[in-house]
Amino acid sequence: MDERVVVIGGGPAGLSAAIAAGQLGAPVTVVEKLGYLGGRPIEEHYASLTPHLADAEEVMGGMVHDLEACADVEILLESEVVGVSEGDAPFTVSIRTPRGVVERTSPSVIVATGFQHFDPGRETQLYGYYEFPDVVALQDLEAMLKEGSVVRPSNGEAPKRICFVQCVGSRDRQIGNEYCSKVCCGVASKEATEVRMALPDSEVFIFYIDMRMYGYWESQIYWPAQEKHHVQYVKGIITEVLPKDGKLLVRGEDTTMGRPMEIPMDLVVLSVGMEPSPGTRRMAQMLGIEQNKYGFVEAKNPPLDTVSTSRDGVFAVGTALGPADLEDCASSGGLAAARAVARLGTRVGG
Amino acid sequence: MDERVVVIGGGPAGLSAAIAAGQLGAPVTVVEKLGYLGGRPIEEHYASLTPHLADAEEVMGGMVHDLEACADVEILLESEVVGVSEGDAPFTVSIRTPRGVVERTSPSVIVATGFQHFDPGRETQLYGYYEFPDVVALQDLEAMLKEGSVVRPSNGEAPKRICFVQCVGSRDRQIGNEYCSKVCCGVASKEATEVRMALPDSEVFIFYIDMRMYGYWESQIYWPAQEKHHVQYVKGIITEVLPKDGKLLVRGEDTTMGRPMEIPMDLVVLSVGMEPSPGTRRMAQMLGIEQNKYGFVEAKNPPLDTVSTSRDGVFAVGTALGPADLEDCASSGGLAAARAVARLGTRVGG
Repeated sequence: MDERVVVIGGGPAGLSAAIAAGQLGAPVTVVEKLGYLGGRPIEEHYASLTPHLADAEEVMGGMVHDLEACADVEILLESEVVGVSEGDAPFTVSIRTPRGVVERTSPSVIVATGFQHFDPGRETQLYGYYEFPDVVALQDLEAMLKEGSVVRPSNGEAPKRICFVQCVGSRDRQIGNEYCSKVCCGVASKEATEVRMALPDSEVFIFYIDMRMYGYWESQIYWPAQEKHHVQYVKGIITEVLPKDGKLLVRGEDTTMGRPMEIPMDLVVLSVGMEPSPGTRRMAQMLGIEQNKYGFVEAKNPPLDTVSTSRDGVFAVGTALGPADLEDCASSGGLAAARAVARLGTRVGG
Repeated sequence: MDERVVVIGGGPAGLSAAIAAGQLGAPVTVVEKLGYLGGRPIEEHYASLTPHLADAEEVMGGMVHDLEACADVEILLESEVVGVSEGDAPFTVSIRTPRGVVERTSPSVIVATGFQHFDPGRETQLYGYYEFPDVVALQDLEAMLKEGSVVRPSNGEAPKRICFVQCVGSRDRQIGNEYCSKVCCGVASKEATEVRMALPDSEVFIFYIDMRMYGYWESQIYWPAQEKHHVQYVKGIITEVLPKDGKLLVRGEDTTMGRPMEIPMDLVVLSVGMEPSPGTRRMAQMLGIEQNKYGFVEAKNPPLDTVSTSRDGVFAVGTALGPADLEDCASSGGLAAARAVARLGTRVGG
C-alpha cells in the first residue's frame, strides 16, 4: 500500500515536520495553499527571524532545500485538503490541486496550518489602525525593514519617534483572547533594535505590561536592545492613539511612575498577537479534532506529548496548537514527524 | 552492524527522544546515572507538573511505560558514559554500568543530561537560604507539596504568610546568569496555587520583575492563580531577608507603588533558576561539542534546527540546551529522535 505522511501547511512547523519525516525515508506529501513554501515569514515579507536576526528568506530557503533533498517528497502548491475519510486511519485525504483533485492514503496527518495576526481593527478601534496611516502592525514594520525603508506611510519621511504597543489582541478578556501570544515581546524588541540600527537618530519606545523575554531572549535580544541600541522600555498601558499636529498622540499610564503620559509619536507599531488561521479552524473541523475555546487545536496529552490530538493518527504542530515561537515550531514538527512515520506500514529495520 | 541510538539521560527530554526513536523501530540505549528513570521530576519529588497539575509520578511513569513497550530498548541504570570515540560517526560509546563497562556503536548520540537548580547560597547570601530554615527553594516546597504537608521547617507549623522571590540566579549579570530561566514564573505560580488550596487561610505573595507567563500559561496558570486562588502578585525587588521575632522580614522595593516594603513572612520560597547540570558540562566536554558561556550545549543552527550541535551526529535536547519547559523537552526530544534515527543504516521502507 502506498502510504504517505501528509503534512498540511508549508510554514516553519510544517517544513520541519516534512523534512524530519522525509529524512527518515518516509514518503511525504506537503499541501500548501499558497504558490510557494515558507509560511508567514515569506508570505508577510519578514526581514529577519528572532533571535539572531537571520535573514528570513535564507533560512526558509534552506528548509525548502532540505525538504527537496529528501527521496520521496511531493509538494503540492496552490492546493488545499478538501476531504478526509471518516473512521480510523489510514485516511484517504482528498486534495484540490491546480491539476484537479488527487487522493492520498495516509496513516498520519500533520496539521501545520498556523496562525493569523490579530486584526487590530476588530472590536476595538482604540489604536486607530484603519484610521491613521502611521499606525501599523508588527508585520507591516517587518515588511518595511525588509524593503530597507522605514518610513511614515502618511508622508514617506523617516520617523523620529517610534513606539511599540504590546499585547494588542492578547491577554485581553474583552476580546476573548486571554492567552499571551508569546513571541510579540521578542519580535517587537527585535524590530525596535533594527529600527535603531536603520535610523540611528530615532527614539524608540516599547510600552509593555510584562516583558516576556523568556530563556535566552533575555540575554540575546532584551539586554542588547537596551544597552547597545538604547531602546526605551516603559511599563505602561496605552489607552488611546489620536492624531495631533501631523503626529500621533499616544495616551496612557506609566505604571512604574504611576502617572498619566501623553507622548507625540511619528509611527506607532501595534504588537498584534496570534489567532488561529482560517486554515487551522477549517482543518480542525474537517478532521474532527478538538479545538480549544480560542479555535486552536487542543493537544490531547500535554505537557509531555505536545502534538497528539483527540483523533488517533492526526497530529498538530507549531502555531496550529497556539502561540509558539520558531523553536517551538521546529521541535514540535520533529516530534510529530517521528510519531507519524512510526505509524507507516514499514518501520526502520523492519 | 548493530547500531543503536544512544540517549544520555532519562529525564523528560531523554525519555521523549528515546520513546520517539523506539517507536520508529530503532534500537535504543538509554544511559541514566540514577537507579531509576524520570529525571528531576522524580529525583526531586515534584508533586505535579505545569500547567495542569498532572501528578508527576504518573506522567513520568507513563513515559517509562511507553519506553518499555518499544521493541528494542536497553535501559542502563546507575550508568554513565565514560568515553566516546574521536572522529566521525559511528561513535563507539563506552558506558560504565554496575556490571562493568560496555560499548555501544552509534551513529547518533542524544545528550539529555539536563539542568541543576541554581544554588541560592552561591556568591550571594542575600536571602539566607543556608542560614534560615524557613527560607526554602522551589524544589523544596515541591517536595513538601508531594508529602502533603506544607510547614515551616523551623517548627513544623503551617505557615500563614508565604512569599516567592522570583529570579534568584536568573537575569543576574553579577552571578553570570544573564538569561531568564523561563519556567520559574509558571512553577512558582503553580506552587502558590497549590499552597492556597492546601492552606486556605494562608496569604501567598509573589515578588516578581516581569511575570513571564507566556502563551497559555497566562490563562491556564496566571489568571486562575489571581482570580480563583487569590495569589497576590507584587512587582518588586527583594534585597534582603532577615530573621525577626520568629519570622522572616522580607525587605525590598514595591516598584509599582514606588516605595520600600518590609513584610514579615513565615516561609520564603526562592524561585531558583536553571544552570547546566554537572552531567551536561561533562558530556559536552567529552563529546567535544560547543557550549555557550553559561555551560549549556550550544545549538548549532537556531532557530529552526533546535537540536543539532557542533559535532555531526551529536544532538542535544531539553534543558541540556538551556532553560526549557516540559513542552520544550518533549518536542526537542522528538526532533532529535527523528534526526538520530535517520542516521541509522536502515531506513524506513529501505
